[in-house]
Amino acid sequence: MSMNSFGHLFRVTTWGESHGPALGATVDGCPPGIKVDEAMLQHWLDKRKPGQNKFTTQRQEPDQVRILSGVFEGQTTGTPIQLMIANTDQRSKDYGDIVEKFRPGHADITYWQKYGIRDYRGGGRSSARETAARVAAGGIARAVIDALAPGVKITGYMVQIGPHTITGERDMSQIDQNPFWVPSPETAETWADYLNGLRKSGNSVGAMIEVVAQGVPAGLGAPVYAKLDTDLAAAMMSINAVKGVEIGEGMAAAMLTGEENADEIFMGNDGKPVFSSNHAGGILGGISTGQDVVVRFAVKPTSSILKTRQTITKSGEAAEIITKGRHDPCVGIRAVPVGEAMMACVILDHILLHRGQIGGEVGETRGKVGPTLG
Amino acid sequence: MSMNSFGHLFRVTTWGESHGPALGATVDGCPPGIKVDEAMLQHWLDKRKPGQNKFTTQRQEPDQVRILSGVFEGQTTGTPIQLMIANTDQRSKDYGDIVEKFRPGHADITYWQKYGIRDYRGGGRSSARETAARVAAGGIARAVIDALAPGVKITGYMVQIGPHTITGERDMSQIDQNPFWVPSPETAETWADYLNGLRKSGNSVGAMIEVVAQGVPAGLGAPVYAKLDTDLAAAMMSINAVKGVEIGEGMAAAMLTGEENADEIFMGNDGKPVFSSNHAGGILGGISTGQDVVVRFAVKPTSSILKTRQTITKSGEAAEIITKGRHDPCVGIRAVPVGEAMMACVILDHILLHRGQIGGEVGETRGKVGPTLG
Amino acid sequence: MSMNSFGHLFRVTTWGESHGPALGATVDGCPPGIKVDEAMLQHWLDKRKPGQNKFTTQRQEPDQVRILSGVFEGQTTGTPIQLMIANTDQRSKDYGDIVEKFRPGHADITYWQKYGIRDYRGGGRSSARETAARVAAGGIARAVIDALAPGVKITGYMVQIGPHTITGERDMSQIDQNPFWVPSPETAETWADYLNGLRKSGNSVGAMIEVVAQGVPAGLGAPVYAKLDTDLAAAMMSINAVKGVEIGEGMAAAMLTGEENADEIFMGNDGKPVFSSNHAGGILGGISTGQDVVVRFAVKPTSSILKTRQTITKSGEAAEIITKGRHDPCVGIRAVPVGEAMMACVILDHILLHRGQIGGEVGETRGKVGPTLG
Amino acid sequence: MSMNSFGHLFRVTTWGESHGPALGATVDGCPPGIKVDEAMLQHWLDKRKPGQNKFTTQRQEPDQVRILSGVFEGQTTGTPIQLMIANTDQRSKDYGDIVEKFRPGHADITYWQKYGIRDYRGGGRSSARETAARVAAGGIARAVIDALAPGVKITGYMVQIGPHTITGERDMSQIDQNPFWVPSPETAETWADYLNGLRKSGNSVGAMIEVVAQGVPAGLGAPVYAKLDTDLAAAMMSINAVKGVEIGEGMAAAMLTGEENADEIFMGNDGKPVFSSNHAGGILGGISTGQDVVVRFAVKPTSSILKTRQTITKSGEAAEIITKGRHDPCVGIRAVPVGEAMMACVILDHILLHRGQIGGEVGETRGKVGPTLG
Repeated sequence: MSMNSFGHLFRVTTWGESHGPALGATVDGCPPGIKVDEAMLQHWLDKRKPGQNKFTTQRQEPDQVRILSGVFEGQTTGTPIQLMIANTDQRSKDYGDIVEKFRPGHADITYWQKYGIRDYRGGGRSSARETAARVAAGGIARAVIDALAPGVKITGYMVQIGPHTITGERDMSQIDQNPFWVPSPETAETWADYLNGLRKSGNSVGAMIEVVAQGVPAGLGAPVYAKLDTDLAAAMMSINAVKGVEIGEGMAAAMLTGEENADEIFMGNDGKPVFSSNHAGGILGGISTGQDVVVRFAVKPTSSILKTRQTITKSGEAAEIITKGRHDPCVGIRAVPVGEAMMACVILDHILLHRGQIGGEVGETRGKVGPTLG
Repeated sequence: MSMNSFGHLFRVTTWGESHGPALGATVDGCPPGIKVDEAMLQHWLDKRKPGQNKFTTQRQEPDQVRILSGVFEGQTTGTPIQLMIANTDQRSKDYGDIVEKFRPGHADITYWQKYGIRDYRGGGRSSARETAARVAAGGIARAVIDALAPGVKITGYMVQIGPHTITGERDMSQIDQNPFWVPSPETAETWADYLNGLRKSGNSVGAMIEVVAQGVPAGLGAPVYAKLDTDLAAAMMSINAVKGVEIGEGMAAAMLTGEENADEIFMGNDGKPVFSSNHAGGILGGISTGQDVVVRFAVKPTSSILKTRQTITKSGEAAEIITKGRHDPCVGIRAVPVGEAMMACVILDHILLHRGQIGGEVGETRGKVGPTLG
Repeated sequence: MSMNSFGHLFRVTTWGESHGPALGATVDGCPPGIKVDEAMLQHWLDKRKPGQNKFTTQRQEPDQVRILSGVFEGQTTGTPIQLMIANTDQRSKDYGDIVEKFRPGHADITYWQKYGIRDYRGGGRSSARETAARVAAGGIARAVIDALAPGVKITGYMVQIGPHTITGERDMSQIDQNPFWVPSPETAETWADYLNGLRKSGNSVGAMIEVVAQGVPAGLGAPVYAKLDTDLAAAMMSINAVKGVEIGEGMAAAMLTGEENADEIFMGNDGKPVFSSNHAGGILGGISTGQDVVVRFAVKPTSSILKTRQTITKSGEAAEIITKGRHDPCVGIRAVPVGEAMMACVILDHILLHRGQIGGEVGETRGKVGPTLG
Repeated sequence: MSMNSFGHLFRVTTWGESHGPALGATVDGCPPGIKVDEAMLQHWLDKRKPGQNKFTTQRQEPDQVRILSGVFEGQTTGTPIQLMIANTDQRSKDYGDIVEKFRPGHADITYWQKYGIRDYRGGGRSSARETAARVAAGGIARAVIDALAPGVKITGYMVQIGPHTITGERDMSQIDQNPFWVPSPETAETWADYLNGLRKSGNSVGAMIEVVAQGVPAGLGAPVYAKLDTDLAAAMMSINAVKGVEIGEGMAAAMLTGEENADEIFMGNDGKPVFSSNHAGGILGGISTGQDVVVRFAVKPTSSILKTRQTITKSGEAAEIITKGRHDPCVGIRAVPVGEAMMACVILDHILLHRGQIGGEVGETRGKVGPTLG
């Protein structure tokens, strides 16, 4: 058991603090013979990189990933892959005020209470910088998925920021064209205005992210505690600042009747089952149906804000706190690539688990649906 | 790795199908010297037992739990505890229609596709009967918590059914006084009328359950993948039919600003920190704050309904399906004691993990907050 | 993590005490669609059953195994298989003396010191009866291996009892023809005389068992902490009373030179590598070579003897102890089927792990040796 | 599950290949507040470092360890500790011959067959260089043990090389005074002569190492698959080239009678049980007795030798092989600090497990032996 690892067969352990010399991920269980290089991982890290626009922290980190092991002559060898990202911009002096005071809504006080010692610089281990390691590991997962289950496509985007949801039609081709990864240019403009105002006032705001995996073969997952949705819920909830996770209909399932919720089943022209709707979010009984796997998660607002809040010091004295420094007004923005990375890791993990317990090629279902020829 | 186990140090493995000879749970890692007997566990099982009113399945199961190992002369010995519940009411003939047809919204099709074989009788392993084993294991967890951390109190109740939320003030003393475990007699009446109508029409409906753990000591949890909220999200999402999980503010955190979300901190009269609010749901950075731990989860409507739905057979032919038999019109009702059991297991697990890594007595925090005497 | 489980993907958890109502094993991760019934498991349990001759305990237990879950219409379903063996012969009164006194060489004192409570009846959890559950689980593993890797054959036999090793040539066809599972009828006679004398004097003796797996495909195992030999060492050392484990040359490897130890490699007529010798015991770098996998383990003598030994009571007073009751004069005899069961579980586990990480059919190696056709 | 991790609560994952940029260990679950710095770890690494005398490989590696995370202001924080050792002496050109040919007795062929790709440079992941990471992790474990259980002392030494055992009395003070860590100066001289001869002839030889842990509190371990001896067997067998592991009497237990093997129990003057002998090697029923924990393991001879051996190439052609390059004539020598490190990790792991499940201070037994005052 490791408290900093996730995954069953594709097992990722992250390590490192915000202001230590480096952080990274140890990836164990990766299949051999997969083409992987640093540039492929860097592509995803660049998507998460801070300082790219005025809506993310102005901390300047190249977030350059190095592969220290497990890859030989451009291919994975089946041995552990060590991914390291050096911390280059460690302006520790910015964080002087939080050495003694606990930021409301932040892990400062719980780390202190649990461990009796904490690396207060930039939030230490509780910093969202830890998610850079996840994105790097997710890059490995994507490369393996591309080799083993080529049709799978994973896409994350924001669907809400504060009170604002997406307006108008969704245009998925627009996701990479705006700082919010929102599939709607008009929405992006509205959100930019809104967030600009918040940022200038020193405030922050929450967000909701949706991640969709298309082309996931039927049959992935395992009842009853390694369900695909169980593992996705854990994966997303483990991301910094996440307070809720939904699959398919999600919390709104409480409002549906059985008649409404039943995704009716038909035979498709390709001889595979098709469904009239996807309330299930692509998962029934913890196992994928072949439909899109749809997950949403809510990210709370950054707790480091320029607004004055009441708190206490380590010695128990009442105090006011304003957190200066370089913080994201909406940390949810950078959670998009992190959510995608977690989705990739979980799906790959279940592909490997499926091969292990069930055998056969990915994408084949063991129980055939449809006429038996003979 | 086990796909049917949960927990790190307090490790529960459930087994059994709806219509096999028995089902149960293997509980490993239980501390020794704890008073446990079958009557203590039966108390919780009776709460979940079917057939108690017209809103739950009319299947008549005594759900009598037997302790087969790990308890000697009324006390746990530290060795594995085997809990067995015989299946006495196995009317397999009721389920003839679903041998060939897949119920929309049910795990029928995914189990078939994954395994190529499934115990179709009563849903087999995917049946909600599996949760009886969880409730029994949760009874063990509660007994241990009572011994190690006596102040902890775990309470579950429904907060929504279909479109209906709780109306009026909450009165926690009323939870056990109505079939919905809802803390409001008036609400219970409204809900009874609503559900009666649905039941008679052969339909079903979803629900939302809230589980609160009071008196949880600060410092439980472990970054970054064995967070208290990560483990709670996995535990709740693994329950049959659950589609979403929230901690504290939950999905609504997306709508808050940082100023609103910050639970301000003060010193309480007892020398412990107190908070102005609990948007965090008692967890910051994956570690408990000492506030109430608050979890909500949404349960989708039962998929076995008397309404006609379109589906296919195993051989791929189009078919209509009506599921007769004895089913819950709102399976969320019986999920209340299951949610409580999962909360108990997760909290105990983290108590043991905390003792292991950090040491010291439960309820002591390692990092003191407040004036140092000397 | 479970302290009573072993295996990665094929995961076995045993439970139960010597004189409780029952004991058993929960088997998780078993592939679906494998033919399994109680009679198949009973075959192996009968081999281990006590009271079959004068060299094993006279306790009369039918050791009848029941399958409570995970098997439907004669085939595994991929869900957890619960195996239960009722304890029918619980003559607790025999064990009165050991309630207060600790038997030298027995787990009495350590269980007491660790847990502060112990089920003293028949050794409780530390009894060799626990191994019945392993043999049942091993029966499942054998059935799966037969389906997935039909050429694998696992055979255990005794190679030493006290000072006596095997004399003369080994005749493997004789293993089932004598109470020692020794591949030599003459040796069996010598051993019978020797053990008879010991038994009558109320003494006991140790033994050494060898287990060989033939037909194991090359490529099973995983560096560096899930090596095939690492897992075999753990599996065998976890058996009651085992004090040493060897692979291939074993402890004698300390005496060899590199020149002697190098198993030279040639191409066989079937296009697979062959080796001039098998000092390696079929494992190099933790991965199977395709040769026979050879494991030996030493079992210490039964500690419950009729000889007077000095000990202390729970209250610390000096005392003499003679253990009456029905005990094996050489518990090593009944360890033979247990060793076979553990070998079966470990090999199956690594077959599944290999499928998971590497893919492909069992018996295929990913890296081909030999001329490439084209 | 990770194939490159060991430990339950104190969890070590090693990564890296012989000739990659670096190797290291991720240590998860370390208690907070423990003084650790690089110099403390370097002390143990220097003991294992190659090139210190003519009996170990002449590869010149400083083996300088860096702590990249988990330690703040000289103390552990409870978060993952990343230990990195750069590979500075990567003379890849030495290894040209083994790109195509498999060394007999080496993992070359099995890695190739399993993965279809291998980093042949210096043995890649199968190189004994991996053990440097274990020694670094063991340094952390020792520091924690010193803080939590100050009386524990772990000492490893060689007891056999080829046909030569220790002659004369053992003088533990001499262990650090000779290249073999043998507790006898005379023996060291004999061994030096013997090994010099072998080395000059281009041959290598096996060895046997004993590791003793003194002062281990009673009660550590956990039946039945996380036994202290089970975990020690796995830990030692996972070390490169190890072929056998013994606890206490070990393989020789097969030769003892029950009367001989029974370590009789008496009350010591300090109110703790004492034993007349230690055939058990400090472990009964998988749980420590309070006596010295004694483990031995056999290391096979280095397979890279200057003697000509028959082998095949990847394309299946017969070939002769002589392995030039810088190799240890007796790799067992450098296994001594590795065995100590594994012992430290296992004992610490069980200290933490014990605290978790049982509670209380280390060294306290829960079940008291001796008169109850009051």
